[in-house]
Amino acid sequence: MNQPKSWIEIPENSDFTLANIPFGVYSKGKGHFAVATAIGEYIVDLDMLHKAGYFGLLELPKNIFSSRYLNPFIALGKEKTNAVRKYIQELFTKGSTLEKDSKSLVNVLHKQQEVKMLLPVKVRNYTDFYSSKEHATNVGVMFRDPENALLPNWLHMPVGYHGRASSIVVSETLIHRPNGQIKDPAKDKPDFGPSKRLDFELEMAFVIGKETQLGDMVSVNKAEEYIFGMMLFNDWSARDIQVWEYVPLGPFLGKNFASSVSPWIVTLEALEPYRTKAPEQSVEVLPYLKEKQRTTFDIQLEVAIATKEAKETVVCQSNFKHLYWTMPQQLAHHTINGCNIEIGDMYASGTISGTTPESFGSMLELAWKGSKPLQLADGSTRVFIQDGDKVIMRGHAGEGTQRVGFGCVQTEVLPAKNIEI
Amino acid sequence: MNQPKSWIEIPENSDFTLANIPFGVYSKGKGHFAVATAIGEYIVDLDMLHKAGYFGLLELPKNIFSSRYLNPFIALGKEKTNAVRKYIQELFTKGSTLEKDSKSLVNVLHKQQEVKMLLPVKVRNYTDFYSSKEHATNVGVMFRDPENALLPNWLHMPVGYHGRASSIVVSETLIHRPNGQIKDPAKDKPDFGPSKRLDFELEMAFVIGKETQLGDMVSVNKAEEYIFGMMLFNDWSARDIQVWEYVPLGPFLGKNFASSVSPWIVTLEALEPYRTKAPEQSVEVLPYLKEKQRTTFDIQLEVAIATKEAKETVVCQSNFKHLYWTMPQQLAHHTINGCNIEIGDMYASGTISGTTPESFGSMLELAWKGSKPLQLADGSTRVFIQDGDKVIMRGHAGEGTQRVGFGCVQTEVLPAKNIEI
Repeated sequence: MNQPKSWIEIPENSDFTLANIPFGVYSKGKGHFAVATAIGEYIVDLDMLHKAGYFGLLELPKNIFSSRYLNPFIALGKEKTNAVRKYIQELFTKGSTLEKDSKSLVNVLHKQQEVKMLLPVKVRNYTDFYSSKEHATNVGVMFRDPENALLPNWLHMPVGYHGRASSIVVSETLIHRPNGQIKDPAKDKPDFGPSKRLDFELEMAFVIGKETQLGDMVSVNKAEEYIFGMMLFNDWSARDIQVWEYVPLGPFLGKNFASSVSPWIVTLEALEPYRTKAPEQSVEVLPYLKEKQRTTFDIQLEVAIATKEAKETVVCQSNFKHLYWTMPQQLAHHTINGCNIEIGDMYASGTISGTTPESFGSMLELAWKGSKPLQLADGSTRVFIQDGDKVIMRGHAGEGTQRVGFGCVQTEVLPAKNIEI
Repeated sequence: MNQPKSWIEIPENSDFTLANIPFGVYSKGKGHFAVATAIGEYIVDLDMLHKAGYFGLLELPKNIFSSRYLNPFIALGKEKTNAVRKYIQELFTKGSTLEKDSKSLVNVLHKQQEVKMLLPVKVRNYTDFYSSKEHATNVGVMFRDPENALLPNWLHMPVGYHGRASSIVVSETLIHRPNGQIKDPAKDKPDFGPSKRLDFELEMAFVIGKETQLGDMVSVNKAEEYIFGMMLFNDWSARDIQVWEYVPLGPFLGKNFASSVSPWIVTLEALEPYRTKAPEQSVEVLPYLKEKQRTTFDIQLEVAIATKEAKETVVCQSNFKHLYWTMPQQLAHHTINGCNIEIGDMYASGTISGTTPESFGSMLELAWKGSKPLQLADGSTRVFIQDGDKVIMRGHAGEGTQRVGFGCVQTEVLPAKNIEI
């Protein structure tokens, strides 16, 4: 599957080869937006191309690429959106008509550095799973019983919970350290103040491309038909707020102050060459969770921390393929009771930890509950995230002209806001 | 505060007096809708009135009442929406210009029985609180330790969790009994099948009328400015699915198969005459939860079960005023970490149980975990809800010409669907 050459120069190690063609939305100034793709160091304004007549044969709605969100485009269905992706690949292949016309085109290509990317979908519903056996085991060992680290339900279902859709923000959105109730175990009541245990969680999320009606179930073997694509997802967590609030109804203010996502949605079709076997499951699952073929995607992931004083320090290297529960299993489970799904729903994986300490996907695990501080490039150490730190997550599959990457989600943490009562 | 008479006949005990004027959306046939209010046994099509020029002085957007959802209307802000409500009260007062014109008006009034009401808001985010001390205590006594029924955090914060927005449906939407994993304590692994412990939860929800940005906090003493109105809310629960899945991340498939709401949103302004003191709190709360005046609303609530064989049996009578945590405290807590809120968000109260057994707001409590079956009018008994049962919740404040009611949320339960794998 040799990818032909593009007439746009694509640097070595670019996430955005012709094999990728992800979708996003960029800002064209107050109140104006356009759907775009990324190629090499550029973004391509699909609305300008559409209005210049390039998508004519595909019979797309007139304003499909001038929408604030990708939801209407995604709603066209995979047949159409895949045809758009393939046609973009043709347009940017060496020798295409677009190459010949390119000198007369204005405002179609912009340097990625010069544009502001926006949250690409209106997030309808957001669920966070807990699908890494290594992560769930680490948490169980730290906070419960090392001999029974996994809870009884964990091997029988992809455990998950509902999260907050409104506070999902795109890469480069600044976030404030959250305030909240924190309970010192030595005291008999909680104090109030900024979280002292701010953490990231390395996750990926998938975005729904096809809706169901209330009462419908999505079969595990057809689930990928409902998935448009994937993103990087940083599930920010305030461990001290979370630990005091989460029994019995689950995480709430310890999570919902912000979740950060990468600006580009990479389609499942672009990831297809990187399909690989999913881990074998140690306990037989119920029939509705049984896959004919257990597959996932081989996506290399890393997390870096950049401080004011120093360049990045890579603190974690992991891989999406480690997850015990697959995306089809997550979606089949979520709908087995008839819960309906909507275009633009986001389903995050849970922290993606591998088996080695370097592959753990949160500071909680990397610094093992504060007992093993991480050394950063500027000589400082971290057990959790400090104000001014920038957390950067990256992911890609494949290499060279076949590389299909996600770019990054990077977020700088500002100090907590003062409270006015 | 004597309400003047309406030129529409309003039956005794109507929830929809001139003092009320709630807002909803009704179906005018495939793809057509209108915003409406309810007076007596009628609904009033506000779009027809608007297009006939009656709202001219209020300078409303042209299509504000032909929207599928109330969100754009609510977004006009309280000053405008309150002015609309007051103007409707004038229009339907005896002697108004509208009364004189009423013979020439067509399609403005419809019998409530003859129209289909729709879900009135596009629900952006949904959170369920757990704010009844009596309910939390009952659950604690049944499932944990009678001596320590309330968990340590309960008296310090309005505990809540994120629920599913997509599966919130309007009254009269049929729902199926959910399928799911159920674990018999005597077995070592779960079985799969229809829930055997389907329950209702008597709740009320408030709807957000004013948005905030990420990082903003809503002060407990200004919180009502952000609340447009209230609805009846049935938080359907499958107890057997819930008990197996909910540790450690909270309720998920045991809840998200459906929640049912009443079609009319009653404004806080309509409820103002029924403001009353909220219960005293036994433990001093943190400053961000301290109210200058602790008030709530006196809203009488009841739940009835109707079977195929018999008329209704009222199984619960409770009151919104029993709740330990108020709506302002819930909203201040939800945003204290900077979590942003959106117009159309729904925040449910949690089960509203009173102190006496007749006032418990769920079958779990009414039949005390199956040990005290309820007697229905047809001679049958119930410990949970059976297929074919219709659960009806009603609520109102005040009486006579001052009565401000919610109508009802009623839902029939269909058998579980067959699974295709």
